[in-house]
This record gives sequence, C-alpha cells and structure tokens, in this order.
Amino acid sequence: MKKIGIVDTTFARLNMGKIAIDEIKSNITNFKLFRVTVPGIKDLPVACKRLFDINDCDIIMALGMPGSKPIDKQCAHESSIGLINTQILCNKHIIEVFIHEDEANSEKELAWLVENRVREHVLNVIDLLFYPDNLIKKAGKGLREGFKDTGSLNE
Amino acid sequence: MKKIGIVDTTFARLNMGKIAIDEIKSNITNFKLFRVTVPGIKDLPVACKRLFDINDCDIIMALGMPGSKPIDKQCAHESSIGLINTQILCNKHIIEVFIHEDEANSEKELAWLVENRVREHVLNVIDLLFYPDNLIKKAGKGLREGFKDTGSLNE
Amino acid sequence: MKKIGIVDTTFARLNMGKIAIDEIKSNITNFKLFRVTVPGIKDLPVACKRLFDINDCDIIMALGMPGSKPIDKQCAHESSIGLINTQILCNKHIIEVFIHEDEANSEKELAWLVENRVREHVLNVIDLLFYPDNLIKKAGKGLREGFKDTGSLNE
Amino acid sequence: MKKIGIVDTTFARLNMGKIAIDEIKSNITNFKLFRVTVPGIKDLPVACKRLFDINDCDIIMALGMPGSKPIDKQCAHESSIGLINTQILCNKHIIEVFIHEDEANSEKELAWLVENRVREHVLNVIDLLFYPDNLIKKAGKGLREGFKDTGSLNE
Amino acid sequence: MKKIGIVDTTFARLNMGKIAIDEIKSNITNFKLFRVTVPGIKDLPVACKRLFDINDCDIIMALGMPGSKPIDKQCAHESSIGLINTQILCNKHIIEVFIHEDEANSEKELAWLVENRVREHVLNVIDLLFYPDNLIKKAGKGLREGFKDTGSLNE
Repeated sequence: MKKIGIVDTTFARLNMGKIAIDEIKSNITNFKLFRVTVPGIKDLPVACKRLFDINDCDIIMALGMPGSKPIDKQCAHESSIGLINTQILCNKHIIEVFIHEDEANSEKELAWLVENRVREHVLNVIDLLFYPDNLIKKAGKGLREGFKDTGSLNE
Repeated sequence: MKKIGIVDTTFARLNMGKIAIDEIKSNITNFKLFRVTVPGIKDLPVACKRLFDINDCDIIMALGMPGSKPIDKQCAHESSIGLINTQILCNKHIIEVFIHEDEANSEKELAWLVENRVREHVLNVIDLLFYPDNLIKKAGKGLREGFKDTGSLNE
Repeated sequence: MKKIGIVDTTFARLNMGKIAIDEIKSNITNFKLFRVTVPGIKDLPVACKRLFDINDCDIIMALGMPGSKPIDKQCAHESSIGLINTQILCNKHIIEVFIHEDEANSEKELAWLVENRVREHVLNVIDLLFYPDNLIKKAGKGLREGFKDTGSLNE
Repeated sequence: MKKIGIVDTTFARLNMGKIAIDEIKSNITNFKLFRVTVPGIKDLPVACKRLFDINDCDIIMALGMPGSKPIDKQCAHESSIGLINTQILCNKHIIEVFIHEDEANSEKELAWLVENRVREHVLNVIDLLFYPDNLIKKAGKGLREGFKDTGSLNE
Repeated sequence: MKKIGIVDTTFARLNMGKIAIDEIKSNITNFKLFRVTVPGIKDLPVACKRLFDINDCDIIMALGMPGSKPIDKQCAHESSIGLINTQILCNKHIIEVFIHEDEANSEKELAWLVENRVREHVLNVIDLLFYPDNLIKKAGKGLREGFKDTGSLNE
C-alpha cells in the first residue's frame, strides 16, 4: 500500500493539510497517510526527510503560505532549496504547494486560491504515484494549479 | 531522557540562550541541556551539526540577531541554508529563531520581540519533541512567534 | 545501447518532450528512450535523479518554460541548482533547456524559440554522448541555442 | 597538540595570514600551524576542506577581502556557502574573516579594519578551540569584530 | 605525472581551452592533459566532476564567458556554486576563469581580457599544483588576473 506524507504549518492561515487529505480521500482509497505539522515553511524540508527515512513515505506534499514581506520570500526560497535537496537525497517526489499571500487581492480570494491549488496538486500527486502516463499526456498543456490554465501555444 | 541543544551568538544583543533555557525550565523538567555560544550566525550550522553528531541532541534551537545591513541579510540567508542542510543530514529539527534588528522600531521593542519570539519558539520545540499532535491541532491558525498571530482566514 | 532520459512539464506551453524525441529520432537510431513528465520545473531535479538511479540513463534533457514573474525566475534558479547537484551526484550530464516566457516578444516567436532551442540542444546531447570531440572543435565559437549564434571574437 | 589552519588569498590587499599568525603566536604557544594561500575567496572552501581532510586541522581561519563590485559580493556569497558546507561535512569550525573593501572610507581605515578584525577573530578561534565557556559568558553582548562593539540591549 | 583538466564551452566567444593549453605548455613540460568542451557554463561542474572521478585529474581549469543579461549572471552564479561543491566533494582545486561580457568596453578589449586572464590563471594553477609556497609569498599583494593588480595597501 502506497504511503503519502502531508506536511503543513501553523504559520499558514488555512488548514492546508486537512484540505489535502480531504481531496486525497475523495479520489483514492488504498493508501496510508502520514500527517505532520511544523511551525513554518523552513521546517518543511527536515519534516519531509523524516517522513521518507523514518516512515518510508512514497511521496509527500509540503504545504505552506509564505507571507508577503521580502524576508518571507527569502524563507520560501530557502525552504524550496531544502525540499529539492531532500528529494534528490531520497529519490522521491515532494510536491511543494506554496501560496504566497500577495498572490491574491483579498483574503477571500486567498482562501479560494489555497483551496484550489491544494486540491489540484493532489491530482498531480496521485498521477505521479499511480498514473505517471497521465502526466505525459498533459505535457506542455500550460497547466496552472489554482489559477486558470494558460493553455498550450498550439491551441 | 531527551537532549536539547541551545546555540546562540556573541553578536546578538541579548542573551538569547539564557532566555530560551529559562523558558524551557519553566515548562518541562525531564531533559538534558547542551549550550554552546559562537561568534556569529554563520557559525550556527556547524555548531548544530556538532551538537547532533557529538552530543546526540534530539532537537536544537539556533538563536541569532542579524543586523540591518544588506550584508547582514546575506549572512542570515547563508546561515539559514546551512541550518536546513544540517537538519536534512541529521534527520532532526533545528528551530531557527532569528530576530532582525530592523523588525523593531526601537531598542525597547527589539528587546521585547527577542524575549517573546524566543519564548514562543520554545513551546514549538517542546511540541515537536514531546507533543507533535499539538502542532497538528494548530495547523493553519496563522500563528506568529513574537508579534501578534495573524489568525486563520476562516475566523 | 545508450539510454536517454527526457523530462518535461505540464506547466510548459508546448510539448517539449515530443519535440526533443522527434529530433533525437531524426538524428540517431541506436538508443533507448525514457520519458517522464512532471508538473513544474522544480520537480525536474528529482525526476532526473530517478532516471539516473532507477533507469540507469546515460544523459538527460530537462525541459521547461519558466514564466515571466519574479517567482518564476526564482523557481528556475532553484531548479537549476538542483539539476547541477543531481549531475554532480550522478557524474552524468543533464542538458537543461529552459525557455523563459519573456525571452520572446510574441506567442509565435516563443513557440519558434522553444522548437529551435530544444532541437539545437538535442545535437549537444548527441555530441556529449557519442561525439565529444565535436564539441572541442566548436569551443569558443559563441554558439547560442535557439537564437542566432553570437560568433567568435576572432571572426 | 591542536592544529590550526590559516588560509588567505593573493587577491587581498594585506597579508592577512601573517597578521593572524602573529596574533595567534602572541596568545598561545602549544599548537601546530598550517598555512595555505589561494588566488581568491572562491578558492577558500576547498583549501579548508583539504586542511581538514589531509592535514587534520582542528579549526581554520578563512581570510579574504572581497572587492566592492556586485560580482565581488556574489563571489563572497558563493564562498560563504561553500565554507558553511565544508564545516558541516567536517564537523569543525571555520572562522570566516572577510573585510569588504567598501566597509571603510579610506585605504588607511581599510588597513586598520583588516588588522583589527583579523586579530579579534583570532581570539574567537582560541576560545572555540580551548575555552568554549568564555564564549557563553559573552553571549548576547553585541560583540563586533573590527569595528566598535554594539553592546547589549540590557546595558 | 600530474594530470590537468581543461573544460571550456561552445558558448564562449574565444577558444579559451586552446589559450590555456598554450600557456601551460609554454611553462611546464611534465604533465598529462585532459580537455573537454561543453555547451555552456552550467555544464562545467559535472564535466569537472567527471574529470576528477573518471580521469583522476589533479586540478582543473573551468573556463567560461557569461553573457551580460541578468539570466547570464544567474547562470554564472549557479555554475560557481556547483564548481565549489565539486571541489569540496573531490578535495581538489578547480580554478574558475570567468570573463563576463560586460567587463570590457569593446570586443577588442574583451578578447584581450580573456587572453590575459586565462594566461595569468594558468600560473595560479601551476603554483597550486607544483609550487604552493609561491602563493604564500604573494599573499595580500592585491593581485588581479586579467586587469592590472590593485596592489597591497602597505605599498
């Protein structure tokens, strides 16, 4: 049975882990779930590393909501580098789902964006884990998680 | 017995290690403490690595006060990357507690912020070490250490 | 038989993997192909690492189209660092083919650029794999993939 | 007997290694010294790594004077990341002593700053190596190497 | 017999590898040479890693000419980080010789600068390999490769 890890933060302003788990459960049934919450996005890389090494997860979603200040952008950058390094060391995918607070024009839109992006990325996780050929079919389609797809230049 | 590492700097303008130890002691009793002080924040990563590898610490607090100049920001960035790498290599959490000098409008507020952020992060350390489920309950609550919480978008 | 890996993204706006495979097939015949598609460019490094470690690829093309926003530039930067680290760890080349959306003045030019750059980089891949001396002959020629060559300062 | 490594550059505009060695000798007697000079600051990380791995140094001073141009700042950044990585890999401290050319208003002040910062950092090296408790006593004192100490917020 | 690796690019606008080899041959006789050319500067780190691991090179020159656009600067930065990591992993020096296109005011000056910097860095390579004490004698002399030396602050 495939093991899926979910890591989110107390810093985020929505329970992203809960949204992800809800979406996973409404799509697949045969899996084992590991959930961890850490304080902030810079704590995500080691939390993922532990889920791979200790809990033997097959794939992980790393969920976070960086703030809008320059220091928040830098934290997101540092976290992303750590997440990529963790993946390289473990040979397994981490799907990073970050929603930056300044991507939305209102708290309402922000909440909508978080919900949407998390749910759409869950489908990527499922494809990576069970149906990698689905992704090949979507290659170059200009897909965007959360906001509207940009679409292919051919269409 | 759990081993907690505390690393701070002579560059900082408050004895952050002392504040952290005071807060830990007022919350838990059954632990072993390792304290190290280094010159600056760029010396934190290897100090943490040594506390993990030589002293077998279970978790570490890395405490620092970066200055307000661009070079200070860069040092903080370099230190953060090193701290994340150290965590990934050791599979254990380091809670980074940095207070940037330009986060506060006066020396008085700065001292208040340092005190507050260190003490609030101690609670994160205790949760990570002993009560990880506490953190899951706080997922997405918009928590901030030091300043006021931002709160959840749902509330 | 040499094994070539092709990784592209669903984020890209053209089927870059398909273009690459078409160009490879029109140039060489004796090779084995492995194709993977991932959601975005930050998923490329681990996908390449897996193709090296699990599928024993000899060389890989990592194909992507970063957007034009600052966050997109940062993602490309993070991805590039991960791709370089992956190469160093595996001692094999990954040819990164990124086309930034703001490199072109129109969607038509963008599509042209993608097509051209991918195809020209395929020739680099073939040289690296089969004819490394060809590259020595082209040293310092001011070659550019996609746009017009700059040429040598001696000519 | 403790082994101290000293690495400086031909790019620097003062013989930093000589200053460091002079200060060490005037403070302690029972140690073995290894000195290496490299062209520029980007050559420091591997020089330190070799001093740890080949010469078994216990601690190293990495001395450099980055120029004032943006490219020089970037080189210093790259070197710092490499120095931190080297420390993490070897579990030993490298005290980085960089003086940026634009930190001083005149060549005279620059020379004074180099001299002062190198000598004050030598004392850190001695404390880290022989008297780590000295550093704990100085935690949070707002110490600065070279320029005047900022002091504690409590004083 | 010492093994020297030379890696340059087809992106560069002068045959930097040829210049380097010419200068090496006019200075020393007893060595073995390994030359590789790659498409761009981001391909240099793995090429160097392979020359160390597969060809057992003792030292390598990594030669490149980054363009003047922001993306070119970023590529140079990524390449430099990879080159430093490679050195740390292999415990051997890579002398990075980058000439940025915007360092010169004309194509003529650019060609002059490339020629000069490559040749002067060859002397560093020879010193690092055969005469490390020569470099100690030049410590702090304000040496610059290509352009005029800045000189020591003491002179």
